[in-house]
Amino acid sequence: MRIILVAAAALIDKDSRVLLAERPVHKALGGLWEYPGGKIEAGETPEAALLRELEEELSISTWGSCLAPLTFASHSYPDFHLLMPVFACRKWIGVPQPNAHSQLKWVRPREIAKYAMPPADRHIGPILRDWLG
Amino acid sequence: MRIILVAAAALIDKDSRVLLAERPVHKALGGLWEYPGGKIEAGETPEAALLRELEEELSISTWGSCLAPLTFASHSYPDFHLLMPVFACRKWIGVPQPNAHSQLKWVRPREIAKYAMPPADRHIGPILRDWLG
Repeated sequence: MRIILVAAAALIDKDSRVLLAERPVHKALGGLWEYPGGKIEAGETPEAALLRELEEELSISTWGSCLAPLTFASHSYPDFHLLMPVFACRKWIGVPQPNAHSQLKWVRPREIAKYAMPPADRHIGPILRDWLG
Repeated sequence: MRIILVAAAALIDKDSRVLLAERPVHKALGGLWEYPGGKIEAGETPEAALLRELEEELSISTWGSCLAPLTFASHSYPDFHLLMPVFACRKWIGVPQPNAHSQLKWVRPREIAKYAMPPADRHIGPILRDWLG
């Protein structure tokens, strides 16, 4: 089974809300809500990939030192295995824009369970709820 | 920077103690204490690699369903970048043996900080302490 590495971010604002992003309907897993991020390309560290993806997907900038390892997803899809480290991030420059998503929402941790998510993302909400309250 | 994938386990016993393993002095990072585990080989999932490593290193057996994503380490060493998902595991068969380590110790989470560890492993103790008390 081939492993695909994806780096994702739980962006957390000053009210302890977390940014969720809705995948466009024409894409795989369309209409589902996910944590922003994307593929780690050859030669990239997870942190470098995530900084690049946050720029591309959301037009925000942050720093490797502001990315804290939180948890990870490990999930077998039919033709690949996804390994996705999820970093918590509380500090960035810019206002997130939905460049690659149909919409963005700031969601309280206890509300995350109401959003339909890809299977790999589903166990992350409870961890954020335990952690952020 | 080349990424090396390593799967590691926080084995937790009924008294909420965590298994630490001391690296043999003749190996890289010798004498330092780590969470057991090892390299994810081509074609393996993180879970499959960890089940194999726990058999090889400790002579214990467990199941993919008993491995719960906890956190991960992401650390740049001089010639590679380590990405290490750490799974919590509370259920296994057998008594851990130091097949690949100089010694093993069951350590209370608040005592983990007293053990010298490779840089990638150091932030995991505080997470276990927060979680297990």
